[in-house]
Amino acid sequence: MSNITKKVSWSSRPDESGAAGEGTPLLNGSEQPRHSRQLSEEGSLFQIGRLSTVDLEEERTSDEDSLRGRPKEIPHNEKLLSLKYESLDYDNIENQLFLEEERRMSHMGFRCLEISRWVVCGLIGFLTGLIACFIDIAVEQLAGIKYQVVKENIEKFTEVGGLSISLILWAVLNSAIVMLGAIIVAFFEPIAAGSGIPQIKCYLNGVKIPRVVRLKTLVVKVCGVICSVVGGLAVGKEGPMIHSGAVVAAGVSQGRSTSLKRDFKIFEYFRRDTEKRDFVSAGAAAGVSAAFGAPVGGVLFSLEEGASFWNQMLTWRIFFASMISTFTLNFFLSIYHKNPGDLSNPGLINFGRFETDSVTYNLYEIPLFIAMGAIGGLLGALFNVLNYWLTIFRIRYVHRPCLQVMEAMLVAAVTATVSFTMIYFSNDCQPLGPEHTEEYPLQLFCADGEYNSMATAFFNTPERSVRSLFHNQPGTYNPLTLGLFTLTYFFLACWTYGLSVSAGVFIPSLLIGAAWGRLCGILLASLTSSSSIWADPGKYALIGAAAQLGGIVRMTLSLTVIMVEATGNVTYGLPIMLVLMTAKIVGDYFQEGLYDIHIKLQSVPFLHWEAPATSHWLTAREVMSSPVTCLNRLEKVGTIVDILSNTSTNHNGFPVVELVTENDEGGNPAKLCGLILRSQLIVLLKHKVFVELARSRLTHRKLQLKDFRDAYPRFPPIQSIHVSQDERECMMDLREFMNPTPYTVPQDTSLPRVFKLFRALGLRHLVVVDDENRVGVVLFFFSPPVTRLPLDVILMHFFVTLQVIGLVTRKDLARYHLGKHGLEELQLAQT
Amino acid sequence: MSNITKKVSWSSRPDESGAAGEGTPLLNGSEQPRHSRQLSEEGSLFQIGRLSTVDLEEERTSDEDSLRGRPKEIPHNEKLLSLKYESLDYDNIENQLFLEEERRMSHMGFRCLEISRWVVCGLIGFLTGLIACFIDIAVEQLAGIKYQVVKENIEKFTEVGGLSISLILWAVLNSAIVMLGAIIVAFFEPIAAGSGIPQIKCYLNGVKIPRVVRLKTLVVKVCGVICSVVGGLAVGKEGPMIHSGAVVAAGVSQGRSTSLKRDFKIFEYFRRDTEKRDFVSAGAAAGVSAAFGAPVGGVLFSLEEGASFWNQMLTWRIFFASMISTFTLNFFLSIYHKNPGDLSNPGLINFGRFETDSVTYNLYEIPLFIAMGAIGGLLGALFNVLNYWLTIFRIRYVHRPCLQVMEAMLVAAVTATVSFTMIYFSNDCQPLGPEHTEEYPLQLFCADGEYNSMATAFFNTPERSVRSLFHNQPGTYNPLTLGLFTLTYFFLACWTYGLSVSAGVFIPSLLIGAAWGRLCGILLASLTSSSSIWADPGKYALIGAAAQLGGIVRMTLSLTVIMVEATGNVTYGLPIMLVLMTAKIVGDYFQEGLYDIHIKLQSVPFLHWEAPATSHWLTAREVMSSPVTCLNRLEKVGTIVDILSNTSTNHNGFPVVELVTENDEGGNPAKLCGLILRSQLIVLLKHKVFVELARSRLTHRKLQLKDFRDAYPRFPPIQSIHVSQDERECMMDLREFMNPTPYTVPQDTSLPRVFKLFRALGLRHLVVVDDENRVGVVLFFFSPPVTRLPLDVILMHFFVTLQVIGLVTRKDLARYHLGKHGLEELQLAQT
Repeated sequence: MSNITKKVSWSSRPDESGAAGEGTPLLNGSEQPRHSRQLSEEGSLFQIGRLSTVDLEEERTSDEDSLRGRPKEIPHNEKLLSLKYESLDYDNIENQLFLEEERRMSHMGFRCLEISRWVVCGLIGFLTGLIACFIDIAVEQLAGIKYQVVKENIEKFTEVGGLSISLILWAVLNSAIVMLGAIIVAFFEPIAAGSGIPQIKCYLNGVKIPRVVRLKTLVVKVCGVICSVVGGLAVGKEGPMIHSGAVVAAGVSQGRSTSLKRDFKIFEYFRRDTEKRDFVSAGAAAGVSAAFGAPVGGVLFSLEEGASFWNQMLTWRIFFASMISTFTLNFFLSIYHKNPGDLSNPGLINFGRFETDSVTYNLYEIPLFIAMGAIGGLLGALFNVLNYWLTIFRIRYVHRPCLQVMEAMLVAAVTATVSFTMIYFSNDCQPLGPEHTEEYPLQLFCADGEYNSMATAFFNTPERSVRSLFHNQPGTYNPLTLGLFTLTYFFLACWTYGLSVSAGVFIPSLLIGAAWGRLCGILLASLTSSSSIWADPGKYALIGAAAQLGGIVRMTLSLTVIMVEATGNVTYGLPIMLVLMTAKIVGDYFQEGLYDIHIKLQSVPFLHWEAPATSHWLTAREVMSSPVTCLNRLEKVGTIVDILSNTSTNHNGFPVVELVTENDEGGNPAKLCGLILRSQLIVLLKHKVFVELARSRLTHRKLQLKDFRDAYPRFPPIQSIHVSQDERECMMDLREFMNPTPYTVPQDTSLPRVFKLFRALGLRHLVVVDDENRVGVVLFFFSPPVTRLPLDVILMHFFVTLQVIGLVTRKDLARYHLGKHGLEELQLAQT
Repeated sequence: MSNITKKVSWSSRPDESGAAGEGTPLLNGSEQPRHSRQLSEEGSLFQIGRLSTVDLEEERTSDEDSLRGRPKEIPHNEKLLSLKYESLDYDNIENQLFLEEERRMSHMGFRCLEISRWVVCGLIGFLTGLIACFIDIAVEQLAGIKYQVVKENIEKFTEVGGLSISLILWAVLNSAIVMLGAIIVAFFEPIAAGSGIPQIKCYLNGVKIPRVVRLKTLVVKVCGVICSVVGGLAVGKEGPMIHSGAVVAAGVSQGRSTSLKRDFKIFEYFRRDTEKRDFVSAGAAAGVSAAFGAPVGGVLFSLEEGASFWNQMLTWRIFFASMISTFTLNFFLSIYHKNPGDLSNPGLINFGRFETDSVTYNLYEIPLFIAMGAIGGLLGALFNVLNYWLTIFRIRYVHRPCLQVMEAMLVAAVTATVSFTMIYFSNDCQPLGPEHTEEYPLQLFCADGEYNSMATAFFNTPERSVRSLFHNQPGTYNPLTLGLFTLTYFFLACWTYGLSVSAGVFIPSLLIGAAWGRLCGILLASLTSSSSIWADPGKYALIGAAAQLGGIVRMTLSLTVIMVEATGNVTYGLPIMLVLMTAKIVGDYFQEGLYDIHIKLQSVPFLHWEAPATSHWLTAREVMSSPVTCLNRLEKVGTIVDILSNTSTNHNGFPVVELVTENDEGGNPAKLCGLILRSQLIVLLKHKVFVELARSRLTHRKLQLKDFRDAYPRFPPIQSIHVSQDERECMMDLREFMNPTPYTVPQDTSLPRVFKLFRALGLRHLVVVDDENRVGVVLFFFSPPVTRLPLDVILMHFFVTLQVIGLVTRKDLARYHLGKHGLEELQLAQT
């Protein structure tokens, strides 16, 4: 036999070359199969570059060092990108098993699948609607009891003096209820805190947020939101509906509950990230739909936040889920309100009916609306900046659960105190109208037949307060009341968002905006006394609400549609759009949207719509992680276990390369032949799919797609899989399981182009290949006699440049963003 | 010098190998540059496969033969795929020039671009609104005159007898007006026929329909639609608005008019397909918005039909254009109606105000709505089948312009005659209401103070008839009138669609549906006499209209939103959605949507959302066109001219390969290094960008991106470019101009995966590469003395497998579709 030496070099880092593979002898094809096996057993881990344990997908040494320099000081920072978040696979893994299944499936099979997708969407809508209904009724009942108790107490003590007892009662009640909500969130499921919208945004974007779509999260979320709203915090119950809908969708579509250990053996086809994502989109849309009675807005929300690829049938299904959701809520609420069939409660929040006559706006009002949009943008940016500082503070000092619970209780008590003080010192008395739009009118120091106007804003659920601001007759509020209310509620809401309770920011934003919007309307009316068109401050309250909400969350099309649908009046489309646009432009000048801030503070590798505009000078070569850990198609079990167990790295995708092809002639470069995921390898190891075992036990069941689906999505860690020393010497054939056609880009591809491919197809790993394929000279020693050739020794040397030279993952792309001083690169860290 | 022979073989067709290139000597790097030049000059056209003139992107010999067998019998056929349609480049051509420009551009530059995008969208909306306003006013004025004349004539002859003269007058008037409209369409711009929606769908899908977005088309379209509506055909003016908006967008965004030969030197950055597509989406949305007063519906229409990739900012801009469009229309109409500032005419068609009280539906009505949806689906399918047969007939026998004009005149006359007959024999007299909803009430044989009810449906513009059906008081129509009207109008509308006049099918569909819907309502009311909920037949008219329209056009989400916005009432969302869904499901069972039928009959290579479900067994290897004509990076001008001039093929994209790299060692496989388009080559030839010229004339201006933009989109044909015999011997360096990083797939990629990549990124060419990269043995002859090596001659042989093995284009993907008997493959033909 002849000796063959193959030198592996890598163009951009020639000093790191050194991993040695082994080729097959030239002109010696008959010996090849045995040789190939030997090769695979000996040089099984094909590592490009020298440092076999360092894979830059997960680890950057310099960043780690810098982190060690300032330990725990700022665990979250918007200049960092966390490595702890994994990605979801929104690109189908089209391996041989999958293709075989698809090819086996008949046309009718696909049709059945389609029908079950519709059924699942219907179920999602129905259950989401039910949950919304449950939350609504629970909040209404409990809040009713609370306000009744406090009201009676206040009324009792107004006469005899000693209202401080009422204040204490109110504050203690609030704190107790909020404590309950905060405890379940802080101690049982911290992911259920907040509105959940940032989390769902991340999920739909392709980031795996641990435990975000579990049943436990749903239960905590629902109970938590009831507690927070009843506890009188400046929060809404709308945001959490979106999260709830998403959890319902993730649960229903899988046909099983891992938490409850029940598997209904249905919908098994949907047990993968791609399908699950589609259903979660539908769930989120159903949530929006139930929250605001806005089915179209829900669809647009899902599309805006998630779906990178617009698919007509998918959109239509999402719309179906949304419709069913709002309809279910509407139907059950109509029964609850003892008026079955009256479909006038399409959402948790109803803006009430804007009469078409009273709402027409005039052309000359449009500049005013735009100005209000600018105010909304400014106030929203202020809100976001304050909340950003507060969040940084919380991350540093309030990270223990009990502290979080105490903070929540403090906020509840302060909210009650401030409200009470405001009501107490207000002398804005209004006559009780005949229609009783106020549910709990507080007379306090007002004359008989009058009520305290400040109390309608503070002594009420925020939803009702919003509606009062929109629809109460002109003159119901005096400007001072509105101004003070705006001021206090602004800071209360800002303090509240980010507490460890589950609660949304939509309603507080609307309430703040409606208050100052109405104030604007009143001031305008007083400036131009005679004109009747200014007479309706409710219109300005609506515009203000839109401006404030837009300034805080910075959603665009979906928010416009949600507002229009919640208003129930299409004619308001143009002003709302203009206002939201202005608010976004003005707000973006100062600070990002609230959800984006929180995503950034969590250092989530979130992919925006496009690569930064000025990033054309970056190419895949600069962006990619390298060197890459590659596997051979026929790989030793021990090697695989070692790679997976390596805790310093945490690879999730491995290019599979082939050093020797079936070609008769030798000297081939190692070429990319597939991509395999950690989760797949784990399943293979668990089922001991080893070449030797398959040979010895002929009856050994072939691994099916079902085995992967059963393990999805909670794949066991590698530590839990026992591999004996003998088994470590076995081989695994990855051919059937790897994705044989991963997407690749040449290394000179520009970042925007890589980004577009990655984002549009929802990829998790993108293999960067060398477009050089340089084949150099290989060193052959032919021992004589090679009779037919007139020579003794052939000296050749192949500088084989390997094809796989890097891997682009989500973190590599999310790292670049447009800062104040041009393109900035975030640091990667294991926070 | 040593001789080097390289044998080129191609694995799947080894017998076709034979094109000879030339390598560089082994271990002889110092000689390489000169050698490389020589090589490029000698073996310039690198043709994979033997048949250099045959490129299957455009030609399939067997199909051509089969076509010659039955010449001109069925020039259009839904089993054929035409090769005459080119694709648009919705993937940016990121060549060196482009990247240099992008890299030069500052952050501020990108911001200015963004602002100009908004400005363009605003302009698009404004102009589209103006056009809609012009059409509306023109139609109203002209139709008013016509109906007044006819009405007076009828009134005159009702007394004295001889109504046949009135009939003749009416018929002749109609025919004359329609003749005008038909002549300009048939003789000047046939592409302006119909609603234009199929054409815009194709454009947004990526198919280049010749002359579809030209100024002349717009003018003909606008004049044509006025003539058809005034001429009393069963058509609407809404569909053409979408086309008009698209043309406006394509014109405004380019900052010049090629037809008028005016270049404003603005928006030059937008002169490429990618940017233009975005603006055309905005234009189409603005058109929908102006037509129906449905800005959100417009956005959804654009997204549903076109944008494969959802981009938040783009969507937001589209929405802005839509809003401006409906607002402009509304504003100018309010001035025209002498009520400035009254924004109650958001669209060309107004469904009128549905009072919230009267429109609430009850739960038990939902099954009825679904049943109506099914009826709509059935009637829609019938409509489509009839129109399909009619279209086949027209393609065969009515293809000469004068015949088309005569057919249009005939239809106009028949429409008038039928209408007159119906009115004449109707004895459905209704009392004239005080509010005068009827504009031209015909008394005819009714008593004084009464009018002929059939005339409100027939003797009116269809828009007004629809509104009457929605809103007239219960009892205004008797069932027989409605039944007869439905029947006649159904066949009239079916006959009319596809005439060579520009006209839409939305309004006739709505009218038919509203008629039978109202009929259903009346029948239901008579069955259940006492219940008041049944009292409003207008509600059923609305549902019927939705059902009929859905059954014909089969749009989904966008149509729901359009209907809801046109109704101005959000509460109708659920029933409309259910109805449209039912209509689509029922209709799809029998026949495709009307637009899809016409797209298929034109044999357009239209890409649907996904590859057929059962196509997983197809791979890129089976789908691709091969062999491919490749170019060398340094290519002889003569060769390029010959390839481009080859009329039997009509390639539009050429992979650029490199036989020799800068590598010091020889024997490299030819590798893919880029992709270049026909249009780019044409520009290069036109500007004589030859290596030799650049050397001789040092002052020669470097070709810039601007030169390509100036030539866009009407690149001259190759025949118009003169290349002298000397110039034919020159070389062209394609490096700067080719796209160096075209997307590639390995040949084993499954069709759905190829499809997804192609569709999601809006590609035009997708290069299929061989994943083998087999390097064989090359034959080297070293003449002595090669002193350092202990040998005289080295014999080696490289079987180089080339990387590029095929090209996937739109036609290759559009060819496969799901027929009744599973997967079917369409034939390709040069129709």
